[in-house]
Amino acid sequence: MTASATPVRVRDIEAAAGRIAGHVRETPILALESGAFDIAAPIVLKLESLQHSGSFKVRGAFNSLLTLGVPAAGVIAASGGNHGAAVAYAAGRLGHRAEIFVPEISSPVKVARLKDYGAIVHQTGANYGEALAASRRRVEETGALTIHAYDQAEVLAGQGTVAREFERQATAIGGVDTLLVAVGGGGLIGGMAAWTGGRMSGPRLKLVAVEPERCPTLHAAFAAGSPVDVEVGGLAADSLGATRVGTLMFPIAQRAVDDVVLVPDEAIRQAQLALWSRLRLAVEPGGATALAALLAGRYQPARGERVGVLLCGGNVDPATLA
Amino acid sequence: MTASATPVRVRDIEAAAGRIAGHVRETPILALESGAFDIAAPIVLKLESLQHSGSFKVRGAFNSLLTLGVPAAGVIAASGGNHGAAVAYAAGRLGHRAEIFVPEISSPVKVARLKDYGAIVHQTGANYGEALAASRRRVEETGALTIHAYDQAEVLAGQGTVAREFERQATAIGGVDTLLVAVGGGGLIGGMAAWTGGRMSGPRLKLVAVEPERCPTLHAAFAAGSPVDVEVGGLAADSLGATRVGTLMFPIAQRAVDDVVLVPDEAIRQAQLALWSRLRLAVEPGGATALAALLAGRYQPARGERVGVLLCGGNVDPATLA
Ligand SMILES: Cc1ncc(COP(=O)(O)O)c(C=O)c1O
Ligand SMILES: Cc1ncc(COP(=O)(O)O)c(C=O)c1O
Repeated sequence: MTASATPVRVRDIEAAAGRIAGHVRETPILALESGAFDIAAPIVLKLESLQHSGSFKVRGAFNSLLTLGVPAAGVIAASGGNHGAAVAYAAGRLGHRAEIFVPEISSPVKVARLKDYGAIVHQTGANYGEALAASRRRVEETGALTIHAYDQAEVLAGQGTVAREFERQATAIGGVDTLLVAVGGGGLIGGMAAWTGGRMSGPRLKLVAVEPERCPTLHAAFAAGSPVDVEVGGLAADSLGATRVGTLMFPIAQRAVDDVVLVPDEAIRQAQLALWSRLRLAVEPGGATALAALLAGRYQPARGERVGVLLCGGNVDPATLA
Repeated sequence: MTASATPVRVRDIEAAAGRIAGHVRETPILALESGAFDIAAPIVLKLESLQHSGSFKVRGAFNSLLTLGVPAAGVIAASGGNHGAAVAYAAGRLGHRAEIFVPEISSPVKVARLKDYGAIVHQTGANYGEALAASRRRVEETGALTIHAYDQAEVLAGQGTVAREFERQATAIGGVDTLLVAVGGGGLIGGMAAWTGGRMSGPRLKLVAVEPERCPTLHAAFAAGSPVDVEVGGLAADSLGATRVGTLMFPIAQRAVDDVVLVPDEAIRQAQLALWSRLRLAVEPGGATALAALLAGRYQPARGERVGVLLCGGNVDPATLA
């Protein structure tokens, strides 16, 4: 596949960055002291967990809403998680109607937050699949826009802005060589790979995908040579539990994702607790997964390698950190 | 009082900054989107809650340990709060013995953290006064160093580095006009005032002290013309509950603290919950007090005024944020 065939180019990410500026936060980075977490390599964290709605997902949501025409019927999403929250938040800020479909069993806290962002929440169906089916019927009925959680070009371009921002911020303090990024359906790392792999000049940032052992979608896709369904479960499944990676991200990842490492749930939990106890950072399991690869030694930096770690989500029940 | 008579000069803060660099984190700042928290003024937060040991207090602790000779008997402090944690952390990192005296009723979580930093913890006495008395006897016995929580020149100089750092970071993104800072015994704002009030050139940063209505030490001192005892209590008393401001900070504050505002406990709680729900930042009541002044309208910025807010502590039981 030639570079021009990629569905997400560097200039799409540049355009997305311009479009969403002012709507999303430029989240801070934090260079850790040497030897932090008993890792010899210098580590720079990007605190994307402080983003609006608690995750990077608003980047893709804003870019989609600002690129695609939004009909009067507004936007519809089926998700009780970070995608739904991001769509609800972005639609609310832009003055669009949003309807979010979640299963009946969804937690009251999450439903309240969606309503707080101004969305109409439909609690329907015994599981995610039933909520999704209901959302599709509603889309047909109303003609509302839908935004895919990860397999849509505007979403990838939006998520890609986090790589652009991280790289620029890190450059101001000496740069990083490598980025560690968690993967679910792969919209995040796909967008980031379009950025790191798409530029023509300068040394390319090494991009390392990190997945829970129990949600190995990209690992399985690389092994099979194309996206395949996997069984998912475990601690981070609420954010990283897509059953296969997207078709758009896959060729981009083949070109520009350098490595995929798997981490056990215990390492994710350890990383989450370490971020709380040593940094007072509240991150969800998916948000701690990239760091877990370092802490558990599943990714071992070379001597002198400077590692950037994306803390991608903060939507955690704080009681679980106590 | 002339500038040369001040016990903490700009060059002491510069020296402290050089001394503690590498031991303390340069904590990030975060510019909020306009209209955040329904405040028209542009707001820049400094996330000092992410500092080692969870508060700015390590700045003064490191500066003291690195300036004063530490005998083999090490350092002793009486505090189950942020001062004790900071002394324990800094001593541990520098390889000094630390003994921390806390009352018998101290929470197991706090005691465990002190031990985790490597300190010897003495749980003794029915209240803080008794723990303090025990710590003094131990100092006489052993000849260990003690560090005052706020009324000591090295501590003020260390805490002053947060103003220097905040100002420099904010300048890179357009600057701030005003800093809002919480006050307990006043070591923090005293050090910051020595920085903002001490420089000879450039427009002076406006410094606004914020106190809980139930811990009005600086307010009472300004009213009386000198430090006086006040009754303290309420939500933030565990961090801001010193009974009077220090003698060292008072003349500095008279010169360079521009305003003191009082906030009710409900506003502190609201600020704490808003930081959690909108930014996923976990701060303790004392760490949310400065922001509470804006949220409750107790400090009203002028049109165009850019306001810096110091989030000074993150040692909160996460369960209280749920
Ligand atoms: C916090 C967090 N991290 C990572 C991901 C994975 O993103 P993607 O599905 O684009 O790979 C998600 C997806 O919801 C998420 O919420
Ligand atoms: C989080 C926090 N904020 C503010 C203060 C007040 O500092 P000072 O006593 O120097 O005024 C303290 C003191 O312990 C604190 O722990």
